[in-house]
Amino acid sequence: MEKLENRKWTVLASEYVVRRPWCTVRRDSLESPAGRRIPEYYVMEYPDWVNVIAVTARGEYLMVSQYRHGLETTDYELVAGVSEPSDASMLEAARRELLEETGYGGGRWRLLTVVAPNPAMQNNRTYCFVAEGVEAIAGQRLDPTEEIRVHLLSLDEVKELLHGDRIRQALMAAPLWRYLYEEGL
Amino acid sequence: MEKLENRKWTVLASEYVVRRPWCTVRRDSLESPAGRRIPEYYVMEYPDWVNVIAVTARGEYLMVSQYRHGLETTDYELVAGVSEPSDASMLEAARRELLEETGYGGGRWRLLTVVAPNPAMQNNRTYCFVAEGVEAIAGQRLDPTEEIRVHLLSLDEVKELLHGDRIRQALMAAPLWRYLYEEGL
Repeated sequence: MEKLENRKWTVLASEYVVRRPWCTVRRDSLESPAGRRIPEYYVMEYPDWVNVIAVTARGEYLMVSQYRHGLETTDYELVAGVSEPSDASMLEAARRELLEETGYGGGRWRLLTVVAPNPAMQNNRTYCFVAEGVEAIAGQRLDPTEEIRVHLLSLDEVKELLHGDRIRQALMAAPLWRYLYEEGL
Repeated sequence: MEKLENRKWTVLASEYVVRRPWCTVRRDSLESPAGRRIPEYYVMEYPDWVNVIAVTARGEYLMVSQYRHGLETTDYELVAGVSEPSDASMLEAARRELLEETGYGGGRWRLLTVVAPNPAMQNNRTYCFVAEGVEAIAGQRLDPTEEIRVHLLSLDEVKELLHGDRIRQALMAAPLWRYLYEEGL
């Protein structure tokens, strides 16, 4: 399989058109290596994100649900969040999110995969972890902007959700299908 | 498994802060059912997107590569694109994109999964198709803004890319892992 060259585009000019909490939009003026000009190219800037497939010692999958205003839907989701400058690592960010959103912690953690929400239009990645053997160690501790419910599902229920397209978020579906595939579940 | 209630937030005010080709940013002022106010919530509006796992009669996987300025990377990808108002259906949008980007067509098509790039912050979905038995029927016909290379990979090469996190885009990794899992490949 051929190694791909990565011939970067030259940034001729760059400015921020929106710079608010949760929304940073940068407009670049670009030139491709072939000399083609792209006068207006928009990139959304975000910190890296994390999510986690968390499984209890009893084999229950720890999921959450919350309203999502982009699609105006409420679905089952993995625990997920945004890395903070105070997180020592992506692993720590994921552990913090799991604890805050569900009160669960402990267990054996590993990085499963790193995916990207949108390499064309976003500058961030999502680090997807597996945490096996987690247990309830605290109460839920949400931001004032969060209304999140916690669910413990069986493997069969998670599979039913995946096959029915009810875990919609691709950043969550990708690691879940990979986990099922690689673990032979 | 519990059926989730979908209690929508009330939109108190809404305006567009960016409305350009490839970038539409809407700012909503919201109130949750619990009475919590969110004065500034940003949603990126896009048409629905499509992608396709296209396999030739010889079992080759039809992939493309192109530079992606958000992450400043060049990776192997599925054929993907944006639905146009002139497309009669998402299937037709996917057939059109495959033909334009690679010159391939024909074959047996089916919808594999519908995922979402970001239910929190985007209003669109991605329809992921499988096309088996496609063949070269025309030349590549790109937009002036596209510089896309076509690759024919073996199943083992696709698996190697997936395991190595080299198909980064979650909207592509999710249907590919699902396909491997469901087909027992």
